[in-house]
Amino acid sequence: MGSVLHFRDKVPVVVLGATGSVGQRFIELLAKHPWFEIISISASERSVGKQYKNAVNWLMPTPLPQDIGDMVITPCQPGMPRALVFSALDSHVAGDIESQFAQAGFLVVSNARNHRMQSDVPLLIPEINKDHLELLKLQSYMPGGIVTNPNCSTIGLALALKPLHDRFGVAAVHIVTMQAISGAGYPGVPSMDILDNVIPYINGEEHKIETEPLKILGKLENNHIEPASINISAQCNRVPVSDGHMASVSIKLKTKASRSELIEAWRGFTSEVYPMGLPLAPQQPIHYFEQENYPQPKLHRNLEKGMAVSIGRLRECSIMDFKFSLLSHNTLRGAAGGAVLCGELLLKTGRIFW
Amino acid sequence: MGSVLHFRDKVPVVVLGATGSVGQRFIELLAKHPWFEIISISASERSVGKQYKNAVNWLMPTPLPQDIGDMVITPCQPGMPRALVFSALDSHVAGDIESQFAQAGFLVVSNARNHRMQSDVPLLIPEINKDHLELLKLQSYMPGGIVTNPNCSTIGLALALKPLHDRFGVAAVHIVTMQAISGAGYPGVPSMDILDNVIPYINGEEHKIETEPLKILGKLENNHIEPASINISAQCNRVPVSDGHMASVSIKLKTKASRSELIEAWRGFTSEVYPMGLPLAPQQPIHYFEQENYPQPKLHRNLEKGMAVSIGRLRECSIMDFKFSLLSHNTLRGAAGGAVLCGELLLKTGRIFW
Amino acid sequence: MGSVLHFRDKVPVVVLGATGSVGQRFIELLAKHPWFEIISISASERSVGKQYKNAVNWLMPTPLPQDIGDMVITPCQPGMPRALVFSALDSHVAGDIESQFAQAGFLVVSNARNHRMQSDVPLLIPEINKDHLELLKLQSYMPGGIVTNPNCSTIGLALALKPLHDRFGVAAVHIVTMQAISGAGYPGVPSMDILDNVIPYINGEEHKIETEPLKILGKLENNHIEPASINISAQCNRVPVSDGHMASVSIKLKTKASRSELIEAWRGFTSEVYPMGLPLAPQQPIHYFEQENYPQPKLHRNLEKGMAVSIGRLRECSIMDFKFSLLSHNTLRGAAGGAVLCGELLLKTGRIFW
Amino acid sequence: MGSVLHFRDKVPVVVLGATGSVGQRFIELLAKHPWFEIISISASERSVGKQYKNAVNWLMPTPLPQDIGDMVITPCQPGMPRALVFSALDSHVAGDIESQFAQAGFLVVSNARNHRMQSDVPLLIPEINKDHLELLKLQSYMPGGIVTNPNCSTIGLALALKPLHDRFGVAAVHIVTMQAISGAGYPGVPSMDILDNVIPYINGEEHKIETEPLKILGKLENNHIEPASINISAQCNRVPVSDGHMASVSIKLKTKASRSELIEAWRGFTSEVYPMGLPLAPQQPIHYFEQENYPQPKLHRNLEKGMAVSIGRLRECSIMDFKFSLLSHNTLRGAAGGAVLCGELLLKTGRIFW
Repeated sequence: MGSVLHFRDKVPVVVLGATGSVGQRFIELLAKHPWFEIISISASERSVGKQYKNAVNWLMPTPLPQDIGDMVITPCQPGMPRALVFSALDSHVAGDIESQFAQAGFLVVSNARNHRMQSDVPLLIPEINKDHLELLKLQSYMPGGIVTNPNCSTIGLALALKPLHDRFGVAAVHIVTMQAISGAGYPGVPSMDILDNVIPYINGEEHKIETEPLKILGKLENNHIEPASINISAQCNRVPVSDGHMASVSIKLKTKASRSELIEAWRGFTSEVYPMGLPLAPQQPIHYFEQENYPQPKLHRNLEKGMAVSIGRLRECSIMDFKFSLLSHNTLRGAAGGAVLCGELLLKTGRIFW
Repeated sequence: MGSVLHFRDKVPVVVLGATGSVGQRFIELLAKHPWFEIISISASERSVGKQYKNAVNWLMPTPLPQDIGDMVITPCQPGMPRALVFSALDSHVAGDIESQFAQAGFLVVSNARNHRMQSDVPLLIPEINKDHLELLKLQSYMPGGIVTNPNCSTIGLALALKPLHDRFGVAAVHIVTMQAISGAGYPGVPSMDILDNVIPYINGEEHKIETEPLKILGKLENNHIEPASINISAQCNRVPVSDGHMASVSIKLKTKASRSELIEAWRGFTSEVYPMGLPLAPQQPIHYFEQENYPQPKLHRNLEKGMAVSIGRLRECSIMDFKFSLLSHNTLRGAAGGAVLCGELLLKTGRIFW
Repeated sequence: MGSVLHFRDKVPVVVLGATGSVGQRFIELLAKHPWFEIISISASERSVGKQYKNAVNWLMPTPLPQDIGDMVITPCQPGMPRALVFSALDSHVAGDIESQFAQAGFLVVSNARNHRMQSDVPLLIPEINKDHLELLKLQSYMPGGIVTNPNCSTIGLALALKPLHDRFGVAAVHIVTMQAISGAGYPGVPSMDILDNVIPYINGEEHKIETEPLKILGKLENNHIEPASINISAQCNRVPVSDGHMASVSIKLKTKASRSELIEAWRGFTSEVYPMGLPLAPQQPIHYFEQENYPQPKLHRNLEKGMAVSIGRLRECSIMDFKFSLLSHNTLRGAAGGAVLCGELLLKTGRIFW
Repeated sequence: MGSVLHFRDKVPVVVLGATGSVGQRFIELLAKHPWFEIISISASERSVGKQYKNAVNWLMPTPLPQDIGDMVITPCQPGMPRALVFSALDSHVAGDIESQFAQAGFLVVSNARNHRMQSDVPLLIPEINKDHLELLKLQSYMPGGIVTNPNCSTIGLALALKPLHDRFGVAAVHIVTMQAISGAGYPGVPSMDILDNVIPYINGEEHKIETEPLKILGKLENNHIEPASINISAQCNRVPVSDGHMASVSIKLKTKASRSELIEAWRGFTSEVYPMGLPLAPQQPIHYFEQENYPQPKLHRNLEKGMAVSIGRLRECSIMDFKFSLLSHNTLRGAAGGAVLCGELLLKTGRIFW
């Protein structure tokens, strides 16, 4: 594949669960994507047969492209021509449907939690663990396969930990999140519940944050991922913010390190996938800010197309070693954007062929 | 003093810094108070000589009483008849002015931070450390004196820790706050900074939370307070909530305890000052909720006239011992309400006389 | 009936549709009501048989009373002992169910729109048109009957117009509303739709505001209500406010009047029902404010237990005659509170007997 | 000037009042502008001599470019080389300073209200009245001059009225605005005033909306602008929205027209300046939406780089002729963006030369 793709060269893609909020982000990102071309939009029974524009309550900040809006929604079944599949399905149906597509020879990039922790499924953050894609060979689906995208809060945390874990070893992480409403999908959180309020509970979220990073930061050895041994404790809160998950994080390191060494580790963290020319890859995956009141969702969530992670306020912690504030965009970096980046990596590394 | 006070029995009070947001809460609480009668309203130069209603941008949810609104603002100087003084002054002027009043024989209850950590000044939460009032005898101001009210976030935390510290000993506390905008006073936080946003920084706040509880939970021995030895690490965030500070807290205990023992400690915590008939004392200072998504600012901040602390989600922490969510009303329990309760205790224990 | 009711004197009441947001307000107001006693709580199939506390997502700012929380939910059928019925049912089921209760001899006060415009059903605002209760005699339900409460935006407008219409005649009204999210019920408006947003559409609302006031301000003549002839044009918007509907109103009068005459008309408007001792009746139904930036939802929605209407900024309009800002609490004055006041009037005027 | 400018061809520009919220928008738009190059950043005494990055509380959603951040702030005096001046000064100083720059030979595009209604100063919306630039010849400043940008709410309204006024004649306009907080500048509206609230008052705003459109839509005749004769009545409200002014508008036409004719007029309205290649000119200045709940600030404020106006819900009005909802971005179309577009027009029409 050349660095410039002509229209006829575009890779066909399918979006499953296209009417929800993550599904809409997929549509927004893929409709204008230089490498991909949407050939089919799938959603639940209720929407099948309708034009997409009539089935969706479009909430994205950019207008729905007309040609996409006119497409007729198909069922979530593998009847279409071979394509790369992006799944934004709800977890109560994602498991089976994604397996069916993989079985039928489709390569599926999923944002759902169902297959994430399976031993032969990559839980992929391209800047961190692209070698985990080797797991695809273990799957029984060839030429199909399943690759998963981590939980929205996990992605930001895993990226922040990666350079520290590589250099100093991370022993323990205490994280308190303040998560945006878009993380709950649509209709999601009723406005009466969250306007002028904080909700100190998000179903299932703490468990994901405490387990997924161990796999992501784990080592691939003999076709097996040896999870990182990090003790993570999470407390999750919902706050009245539209997009962008904030977190107050404390960490304990295995090796002693200074504040400036940590900042240097973050700032020196370079992405292997950016030089590969992946369109959604951030040039600098981690931005560290010196301003004492940064990062903030409103100011930094859209940094580098919403794909960069923002960190600030690194200081010593009297209980752990250090504490800091962390921000990432939950539906871009943390969901659809992250998944499309996975798709870009699959294409660029020659794993899509049919 | 009998249980019913006739009008002529009311104790005269003065409010310093009456136009700010905490000052307004003082006015609101004192205007209808069964024991106190406002005789003087003081504020900065700019407001002196104006009627209160013309100097204040009244933000309280109940209307400004007409007789109070008509009062003419006096300078912050001890020229009025002897009275109990409630100070809502800004910390850049509070130190000197409060000392002047105390010197002139006034008993001052202050919400400002200036005198809080002085060795002879009680940092008072009536349900926790009313014996600390003995420190008043050490002050040089007799019959005047200074009593202080802790920081708004500290009060909720100290109340939550008190029963646990008494029974099991608290070794360490990790706290992440999500604080309401009213905590920054008025005009305080610009709306462009906080609407649809989180600000991970509040000037000076973390230091207060890490130090004040040690004094409050300390032991009075030989006219000296021996601070509690608890390692506290705080991270403070501002969120778009009108009133009510939330916190995600983790604690390490000195003695092993079970989840049910902690809940029992909280639920069994009785206030010694409620039976004394203090009007603002909550019947039950700590409410523990079993619902997995409680407490919430919008639902629980006004519990027991806004003077109770709400706790929920107690569960084990893989790093510390336990973690939980904590809520208290920052301008009621955490500022004006807490200070008025201190004033009530001073009156009831016979410390006001002139 | 004496002015003090002993427990055994309390009138039994039933709440239909008790789990929704208006239903919860009914429960909150009735649980502590001096005249009424809740004997049955009804809701949809899904909730029948559960304890109320387990079926409701309680959103009120005061805690759910324990004895009410323990009550077991009954079906929405007239099987209980005779009682006054308050209906917070959704309009898609309210019509039939309310008729069944009336048929079975129950007196029903409904917040639903279904029966509002029927010629023999009072559309009642006690301070305005209590004589319309005579319509009850025309209904076929004796001793049962149906009384309705107007739309939440209508009530504030009708109260503001009443004194002007009586004195000067109102020819036309142009109204633009900015309505709170609680007006849409629960779960109602998704937070992703309204946070940092305005939605310029509320289904069916404009039609209600343009028609209901004509009946309310109409004259009862020969067992028939002759509607007021006022030309009303409404535009409705949803704004991110928890409670309190604001409106920018312009009016054209039939008789020339000065600004001060209008204000005098509002301030001089006295409620006939307040002297009757109805517990929820506001002493002064209309408050006019001189401050140029009043009224505001946050400051004035709870005035007089949330039952008063607030007006400000009266000034000349170059197109109509005058324009002003109007505020009323949509779930108190505008829904449950207004309906309970209707129930109080029914009781006080001897229309409840069985 | 060719259609592609090389770097050395860029026109030097100065921003006055660069630290405020509109000033920041100017910086954001000009820093990446293909035709302009910032040579000087000016602000008040307090900031002079500091690097811009240290003087500004940067609130824009895109990062401050490093080279701009490093620039040292100069006083607001015409000491720099000749340049096009964009003024975001506060109105209490804008009048004199802008005159000084014009006197010194600078061409000034101002967002302040001071000179707007002067008979020889164009009040410019490029799509509407570019012929008004002829007024520049009447000014005594040659080669300097002053061009003004209308009030943020006025711009959206004037654009919506233009095609209707041209075809059918607009006799009267009733407008109720719901304005975003960014319209009040920074720090502007305190969060305690606007969170969960509506404020029915914006100082001076109604007068501007009632007068400025008459000049903008006026006819240039014999070096004089004959104002349009339209009766406008405005009511302004502040709502908790970050960006984007909404309005509920009613209009009376001089000539009878149908709903579809109005929509056709809007949709057929083409910009004369877009074909001229002005970088900020929207392709389609007015977007009409058929969806019943459109337009909305969150969904449409950024349409066409924030420079298009969005309209929806056109329907008959029983008092005026028609009513509709209107949205425009207040700091892009309504302030800095509109002013930069004026600057682009000045350049393209050859009015900048020195």
